[in-house]
Amino acid sequence: MKEKLTEEKVFKDPVHHYIYVQDQTVWDLINTKEFQRLRKIRQLGTSYLTFHGAEHSRFSHSLGVYEITRKIISQFERHGYPDWPKEERLVSLCAALLHDVGHGPFSHSLEEVFDTDHEEWTCKILLENTEINRVLRNVSDDFPGKVAAVIQKTYPKPIVVSLISSQMDADRMDYLLRDAFFTGVNYGTFDLERILRVLRPFKGQIVVKESGMHAVEHYLMSRYQMYWQIYFHPVTRSSEIILRQIFRRAQQLYGGGCAFDWLPDSIKGLLAGTMDVHDYLKLDEALVQTTFAQWAEERDPLLSDLCDRFMNRRLYKYITIDNPDESLLNEISDAFVSIGLDPDYHMEIDFPFDLPYDVYRPDKKEGEKKEKAPILLLSGEDEVSEISAKSDIVRSITGLHQGQYHLYYPEEPLLRAASDLPERVKQLFYIKGV
Amino acid sequence: MKEKLTEEKVFKDPVHHYIYVQDQTVWDLINTKEFQRLRKIRQLGTSYLTFHGAEHSRFSHSLGVYEITRKIISQFERHGYPDWPKEERLVSLCAALLHDVGHGPFSHSLEEVFDTDHEEWTCKILLENTEINRVLRNVSDDFPGKVAAVIQKTYPKPIVVSLISSQMDADRMDYLLRDAFFTGVNYGTFDLERILRVLRPFKGQIVVKESGMHAVEHYLMSRYQMYWQIYFHPVTRSSEIILRQIFRRAQQLYGGGCAFDWLPDSIKGLLAGTMDVHDYLKLDEALVQTTFAQWAEERDPLLSDLCDRFMNRRLYKYITIDNPDESLLNEISDAFVSIGLDPDYHMEIDFPFDLPYDVYRPDKKEGEKKEKAPILLLSGEDEVSEISAKSDIVRSITGLHQGQYHLYYPEEPLLRAASDLPERVKQLFYIKGV
Amino acid sequence: MKEKLTEEKVFKDPVHHYIYVQDQTVWDLINTKEFQRLRKIRQLGTSYLTFHGAEHSRFSHSLGVYEITRKIISQFERHGYPDWPKEERLVSLCAALLHDVGHGPFSHSLEEVFDTDHEEWTCKILLENTEINRVLRNVSDDFPGKVAAVIQKTYPKPIVVSLISSQMDADRMDYLLRDAFFTGVNYGTFDLERILRVLRPFKGQIVVKESGMHAVEHYLMSRYQMYWQIYFHPVTRSSEIILRQIFRRAQQLYGGGCAFDWLPDSIKGLLAGTMDVHDYLKLDEALVQTTFAQWAEERDPLLSDLCDRFMNRRLYKYITIDNPDESLLNEISDAFVSIGLDPDYHMEIDFPFDLPYDVYRPDKKEGEKKEKAPILLLSGEDEVSEISAKSDIVRSITGLHQGQYHLYYPEEPLLRAASDLPERVKQLFYIKGV
Amino acid sequence: MKEKLTEEKVFKDPVHHYIYVQDQTVWDLINTKEFQRLRKIRQLGTSYLTFHGAEHSRFSHSLGVYEITRKIISQFERHGYPDWPKEERLVSLCAALLHDVGHGPFSHSLEEVFDTDHEEWTCKILLENTEINRVLRNVSDDFPGKVAAVIQKTYPKPIVVSLISSQMDADRMDYLLRDAFFTGVNYGTFDLERILRVLRPFKGQIVVKESGMHAVEHYLMSRYQMYWQIYFHPVTRSSEIILRQIFRRAQQLYGGGCAFDWLPDSIKGLLAGTMDVHDYLKLDEALVQTTFAQWAEERDPLLSDLCDRFMNRRLYKYITIDNPDESLLNEISDAFVSIGLDPDYHMEIDFPFDLPYDVYRPDKKEGEKKEKAPILLLSGEDEVSEISAKSDIVRSITGLHQGQYHLYYPEEPLLRAASDLPERVKQLFYIKGV
Repeated sequence: MKEKLTEEKVFKDPVHHYIYVQDQTVWDLINTKEFQRLRKIRQLGTSYLTFHGAEHSRFSHSLGVYEITRKIISQFERHGYPDWPKEERLVSLCAALLHDVGHGPFSHSLEEVFDTDHEEWTCKILLENTEINRVLRNVSDDFPGKVAAVIQKTYPKPIVVSLISSQMDADRMDYLLRDAFFTGVNYGTFDLERILRVLRPFKGQIVVKESGMHAVEHYLMSRYQMYWQIYFHPVTRSSEIILRQIFRRAQQLYGGGCAFDWLPDSIKGLLAGTMDVHDYLKLDEALVQTTFAQWAEERDPLLSDLCDRFMNRRLYKYITIDNPDESLLNEISDAFVSIGLDPDYHMEIDFPFDLPYDVYRPDKKEGEKKEKAPILLLSGEDEVSEISAKSDIVRSITGLHQGQYHLYYPEEPLLRAASDLPERVKQLFYIKGV
Repeated sequence: MKEKLTEEKVFKDPVHHYIYVQDQTVWDLINTKEFQRLRKIRQLGTSYLTFHGAEHSRFSHSLGVYEITRKIISQFERHGYPDWPKEERLVSLCAALLHDVGHGPFSHSLEEVFDTDHEEWTCKILLENTEINRVLRNVSDDFPGKVAAVIQKTYPKPIVVSLISSQMDADRMDYLLRDAFFTGVNYGTFDLERILRVLRPFKGQIVVKESGMHAVEHYLMSRYQMYWQIYFHPVTRSSEIILRQIFRRAQQLYGGGCAFDWLPDSIKGLLAGTMDVHDYLKLDEALVQTTFAQWAEERDPLLSDLCDRFMNRRLYKYITIDNPDESLLNEISDAFVSIGLDPDYHMEIDFPFDLPYDVYRPDKKEGEKKEKAPILLLSGEDEVSEISAKSDIVRSITGLHQGQYHLYYPEEPLLRAASDLPERVKQLFYIKGV
Repeated sequence: MKEKLTEEKVFKDPVHHYIYVQDQTVWDLINTKEFQRLRKIRQLGTSYLTFHGAEHSRFSHSLGVYEITRKIISQFERHGYPDWPKEERLVSLCAALLHDVGHGPFSHSLEEVFDTDHEEWTCKILLENTEINRVLRNVSDDFPGKVAAVIQKTYPKPIVVSLISSQMDADRMDYLLRDAFFTGVNYGTFDLERILRVLRPFKGQIVVKESGMHAVEHYLMSRYQMYWQIYFHPVTRSSEIILRQIFRRAQQLYGGGCAFDWLPDSIKGLLAGTMDVHDYLKLDEALVQTTFAQWAEERDPLLSDLCDRFMNRRLYKYITIDNPDESLLNEISDAFVSIGLDPDYHMEIDFPFDLPYDVYRPDKKEGEKKEKAPILLLSGEDEVSEISAKSDIVRSITGLHQGQYHLYYPEEPLLRAASDLPERVKQLFYIKGV
Repeated sequence: MKEKLTEEKVFKDPVHHYIYVQDQTVWDLINTKEFQRLRKIRQLGTSYLTFHGAEHSRFSHSLGVYEITRKIISQFERHGYPDWPKEERLVSLCAALLHDVGHGPFSHSLEEVFDTDHEEWTCKILLENTEINRVLRNVSDDFPGKVAAVIQKTYPKPIVVSLISSQMDADRMDYLLRDAFFTGVNYGTFDLERILRVLRPFKGQIVVKESGMHAVEHYLMSRYQMYWQIYFHPVTRSSEIILRQIFRRAQQLYGGGCAFDWLPDSIKGLLAGTMDVHDYLKLDEALVQTTFAQWAEERDPLLSDLCDRFMNRRLYKYITIDNPDESLLNEISDAFVSIGLDPDYHMEIDFPFDLPYDVYRPDKKEGEKKEKAPILLLSGEDEVSEISAKSDIVRSITGLHQGQYHLYYPEEPLLRAASDLPERVKQLFYIKGV
């Protein structure tokens, strides 16, 4: 069963204008409850606390990744390029649509604390007893496994994997455009139409016609700016720190046998580390926010303070530290302890970084398991070269990163106890004469 | 204390590009927990189920209304128009910012079922023991009352009221632009800059210089299209019907003494009709969604089915009925009963309407208590006329409405029991030969 | 020879982003000198004197009409609709590209004075000894004639004609979007992508799926606003009047045997009414502007004043007249004569009008020879109805027009001779106490 | 006479939405014939032959530079910054409006061939007997000289000069946005509103608050892309080469005593090098285009071929040459001569370059006389640093340039005489087997 819809379905989308669904399978997948759940997971986690427009969900991003993939494949089919394996259309579309279906609430923070992995959950959702699995099995018995393999990057045809996972894949292209749109910044707007038009399947890879190089440069510069202005924004980092502290504290309290006034089953499963796929699917950001609102009234003062901070956006402040050596950190830590703060929860060093474009990336980003395929230019009939060999601007930003060490902390207790702090600490935290 | 901030604060906003805060009071209001709560109330209620981009909150809309009001007043001040009462700046800005602060989750549906009124709650939040009240009292003791009076439209200076409540107020101008932006439609984009430039304070009213008439026409046509394409979209109406059924059923069950597995205190207060302002402030859409997710597993099959429908977007379908007379409705109702459906919950007639612009509106819209001030054009020095006297296109759409009767119902049970339905009912519901 | 290009050619276009050329014939046509000449004919004639951005040429509009037509046909082909005659693709594209190739400089004014017709010139350019003719004949001997027949609306298949000439054709859709873009107004921006998606070939006509009705309403409202805000703008009308006066005066002088200091051959041909197609093709707006700049120094004071007015934008002013009856006009005319003005050149009554959408249009617009095909909606499989039967808003604006009589005149001589004017005339022209 | 207009005048502008005129002097300047002449000078010279949308004039750009300057000054005034000399408002606005008024038709090419300088002409237009001079003298006798000094960068207050001439001045900001808009590319769209908001007058300079650094980075990257994608586009370079060849050939023929069939007085003045300001003001692109159209029929085959190429867009092709050493060029030149071509006119080496941002620029750009003031960041109260000291991305693109040597030539004669060319030359020009 791979039937076409008799009439194509249309979603209005503010980024791509319209999203077109032409296959019964894709339509059925969108209507599963596991996919609908993505409406309750924000695409940008806590960024809405910095950019109030960024309230968009992974539901809309997933549709967007699907749509970009659909457009790429349509173009390949329309031109009849022999290097595109036509029979891979549906598996590619399903993988594009479902690649994020295993994300939990505030995924990155949650994964760090509870050591889960959204990609693993995605595969479970595809392969275990779910509505999505039933829809995929309607295609063929091995179809769920094939879609999962694409998402896990183990699919035997790398060209299919690279559609949704490479240095310039449908995933990144959608999120850069979408996040720029919803935050309201204008540096994320590269020329998607042009890029789609110059992509070519070529010997098992996707390459870019050299005439499209400038559009790719623009894409990479957009990406650079988005990382530094949006994704690594210090206010967002602060809210993520608070979030992780809440999860850590709750886990610690739960492990210590503390009774909670409020503990829905799926949250208990999360804290206890005993979730199956159905428990996991009950986790969403509505539940987490509701839980935090309740926990703001729990007895543990640390947990309740952290939850209050998160709900009411009373975030940690930060100072920039050029060289966070041990002696300095110890000095700060001691001062914090001396005024009743807990360095485990009340100070955190953060060092964000992203390499806008790397050919060989020696240090992997957290959570990334494999190198992403590089961007290849096709000159003439068959000369392929990695983009930084051709582009001065790409070469000049390759390897560039501008991270700084930030130390996050709650400002109010420091101000209250200012007179008890050593002079050097006061200077460091810009606490003026008491 | 009406001090200016030493450095103006800036919010990035996708609709207005930037929102500028120049007053300590406004800044403090934004940081209250009651205002931050608006992040958890969607601007468009259930519309996100129709337009997936429409996930924006009342928080961002409230900032937008504030910003438009700030721009209007700045322009009045810059030109030094004598008819603008300068001392009303701060009260106007606060009223603009706070006018929606009393909205509950999925407000319109909630108000219908539980007979509450968001404007009353707004006033309580301004006047009772809240952080907002404390910030407002910092200005002066009577300041909370003044802001509340503007919102209630009883403030002695109608020009202040008309800024946020008239046929072309900051509220409507923001929501039309914002809702168009987030849904992704392009008919909501009138020329705000032009309209702001031609507004004038004039004898206790706000009027529009005649040279701006075309921009106003465009605004009214945008509004017409937004109502019919967005606000009254049948899929959205269907989800609102489901929502009201859930609330009604829960209220009925609660009234009947049914024990719920899941009943957080604030939901209990809602069902019991015994909320104070602090209970009310705990209601938000995260809590309601979490509650529905839990209720999908309650024993009552009607409640659990309705909640499942809402969470997983399995909405009611509809048919259009030209003339919903009693005998027809009875016939349908009987057929529904005969196959085990409950007409109280499984069929609902809906007739949306909006008058795009009315001078004298004889039939008030549900929930509207007072006439909105009409749009007045200023010709020459002092000739004022109502816009439909001057504009052919406004006159031609005045009084126009295009509502149709829709009957909403769950499709699956009808299809399952199709062979038991009378022929005429089958035809009506387009159920093809069994 | 109907070959495809081995590599498609791309033009960057600010309205459609990109324009794609896939056929050798289309590419060759664009590179003929007759088509390149369109770069020197502005799309909006004298409108750039009102909206300084409106400097775009018929060259870019022609590419736009081609591109919209190409998109419509691609969609028809992709879906394999049986009612679309596939063999008409190239003739449709060529007609779309070339439909305006016969336009002269400031076409509408020129046609009125010299009684020429751009459609006739278009046909001559297609059929006589030109580069365009040679390219078209490369397809087949009868191909130039077929393209000309489409443009003349005599082609035997009306569906081909309606692509470029109907109430919602590629021509109008491009110019509304393009003129809105370049003037900078935002009411011309209807949803082209949506409209293209809902067009269907159906029994020899092009119809619109009913689900696209709202997009069509938006298109018609955009058109209404564009006519009144842009095309009929009084400043533009004033410059057109000056332009016609210049042509009329020059013709009169030439007819009277006057020797001109400056009279290039093609201008002489224009004044003498003896142009062949090659003379005509030498007429462009650069030549006309250069001629006016020179004529500003001719001896005839009327001609030189009019040219100076046009070049330096010293246009006529206007007053609005409710009822321009003969006695009033005589009174004004007498007053004008009494202060040395020439009513033939110094006063002109103007009454612009356009009917935004008409099913049956009894009074034809100047220059229009045939009814444009109406907009038809397709409901279900085969029910076709004219749009105003379904749409309230279209019905309400059908037949609406808002024209006013304006009297245009040179202000300076009236002000100079104000004391010699009768009181009533002074009042009419708002000339204050002398 | 420095009076304010009783009612501000408004221009609709597609880039800035509206342009506001508040001063009688500015209004009068716009209405002079010398300023209106700018409508007949394209902003981007021959770029319309590459990007058909780029038909916008220096008239609209000049209004845009004025508007940006007005906005900057308004902001300075609104905040009452003490470092802004308020009395310099009008001179700044006039200089912004008039800075380009001396541009001739296809200015850069014309200046190269005839060794004129638009800035000198601008000063003559301001200081000699013109309408502009009369309007400026209405302000005060020394006012024309003051405005000219700002444009010549000799005005005693460098802060005024830097508004319209620095690394990030109103001139560059307008043209980047405007040229991006009209060509239709989307990499020129930096965040003007943000940049304007973070500019500060500071000790005789204009500096940028450090919080605006990212917006400046975006501006510099936009500029980089605009140079390489638009301003240095090879097709545009080719048309500029043709243009210069035409001017050179005509000058050569005129110098040699050749009689022209067509030689308007102002063109004669240009060729003879004997223009006064009034002759110069008669030069515009309409005249130049009309002249070329006529010259296409002159007897000199070189001149007529070049004019035909320009009018009908039959431009030179180009090949890229890695290392254009003398022996190679001689070899090509000999081959060209051997087939009857004239190397002086039929081959030209081109090497475009721009440094996107330079602190110290050792090699000046052609025509640039002075260093442009660098971009300075203001941290805290009074720490000023040059941007590349703070920004990694700016430092990484500083000094970057990517120019390549291109050799332009007419393709047709080479193809025709291919069999007579040496093998190596054929290879170089990609002429395939004969």
